[in-house]
Amino acid sequence: MRNFRLTIEYDGSDFSGFQKQPDCRTVQGELEKRLSELLSEPIKVIGAGRTDAGVHATGQVVNFRTSRPFSAAQAADIINAHLPLDLTVRKAEEVDNDFHARRLAKSRTYRYTILNTPQRSARLARFVGWIKEPLSSEAMNRAAAMLVGEHDFASFQAAGSPTKTSFRRLIRGVCKRLGNFVWVVLEADAFLYQMARIIVASLCLVGRGEKEAIWVEEILKGRDRGLAPAPAAPQGLCLVSVKY
Amino acid sequence: MRNFRLTIEYDGSDFSGFQKQPDCRTVQGELEKRLSELLSEPIKVIGAGRTDAGVHATGQVVNFRTSRPFSAAQAADIINAHLPLDLTVRKAEEVDNDFHARRLAKSRTYRYTILNTPQRSARLARFVGWIKEPLSSEAMNRAAAMLVGEHDFASFQAAGSPTKTSFRRLIRGVCKRLGNFVWVVLEADAFLYQMARIIVASLCLVGRGEKEAIWVEEILKGRDRGLAPAPAAPQGLCLVSVKY
Repeated sequence: MRNFRLTIEYDGSDFSGFQKQPDCRTVQGELEKRLSELLSEPIKVIGAGRTDAGVHATGQVVNFRTSRPFSAAQAADIINAHLPLDLTVRKAEEVDNDFHARRLAKSRTYRYTILNTPQRSARLARFVGWIKEPLSSEAMNRAAAMLVGEHDFASFQAAGSPTKTSFRRLIRGVCKRLGNFVWVVLEADAFLYQMARIIVASLCLVGRGEKEAIWVEEILKGRDRGLAPAPAAPQGLCLVSVKY
Repeated sequence: MRNFRLTIEYDGSDFSGFQKQPDCRTVQGELEKRLSELLSEPIKVIGAGRTDAGVHATGQVVNFRTSRPFSAAQAADIINAHLPLDLTVRKAEEVDNDFHARRLAKSRTYRYTILNTPQRSARLARFVGWIKEPLSSEAMNRAAAMLVGEHDFASFQAAGSPTKTSFRRLIRGVCKRLGNFVWVVLEADAFLYQMARIIVASLCLVGRGEKEAIWVEEILKGRDRGLAPAPAAPQGLCLVSVKY
């Protein structure tokens, strides 16, 4: 058996998230179907991050094993010819047999893009969260910095999530403005369900001046989902890289 | 009657072009339907450019007349609340009664975006034409310059187009590279049907080194649609501005 690592990109708009589900179009489901057809054997795909419906990726990492002869050099071209337009392989490599895209990932980095203009944008609608009120990226950046470190992120986890622990290590939390856009970059060892989008929604309340930066630390310490706002819209979120 | 001018933006992917057609979702059709509902009277929309199916706009200009009381200050907000996500008003102004978005337009500017990378991009698929082979934007720019001026663009017009004359004035024809992207910017008094996309396809053959820049001038002088290639894919094209 040979083991291949793929760096993939997708427009998440028309996928019901990464993870395979019956009767839904998912990234994992599409990859497994197309790779199984291409290689004429059942292929199982393992992904680094379980992105939600509507969430995009430019640097999702997956791996799959195959017994078929398959050249890494041509793999990206060949696989892309079999994939739908909203899903592409950016890079394909043959890796050691023990490489596991999820278990061996040291960190995931997500970027959330906010369009901060008086009017929404038709062309960007699939790829940004839109906020009309002017945001202070400086205040958001101060608030984000308070979350960096190893903490119990229970307040920032979707209610009823079945996880063993809600402790996670946020490695990087940065907000910056680029013209009409505000970017929130979050890197963590792993993310709880909806954690990135609940953090972004909290930072936006600070950015709009409705809350002080310190309020985000109070949510964190409270360890209560009820303290934080509803998650930000999925279309602004993108899994940009995975470190091993 | 009051006359309103709107600068509009759309993601053309899910529209059958600008111009109203029976049983098709078009930009003009959506605008007329939504404005008629909003203003409770039949509204007729006039547009500066008849973009094709799949072609986008960031600066299309339209006008419509209404007898209803309607404030230009709030118009963009109010209309946007009634429009689908892939169609937005960027700016709304009340204008003189004789303003006519199509007849008074002095020029239209289109930008074509080529993604020039070894692999296609899932996230950009709706908004770029993808060319794998490395393009020389310098050669393309030299070729584009040969088309500037008033010429018979018969070679660059879709076969069988019913126009009185195929003379048009190309005011600007520029190609430049920005990282992995090559932009073609074309400004003309008016464009023939598919003219922008046939010019882009011709320039790309020069950019790939299959033809010399001078070949584009030969096509122009030949005045024969058979000399030029098939039009470039619509999704790379965007109507960026209209001058009056």
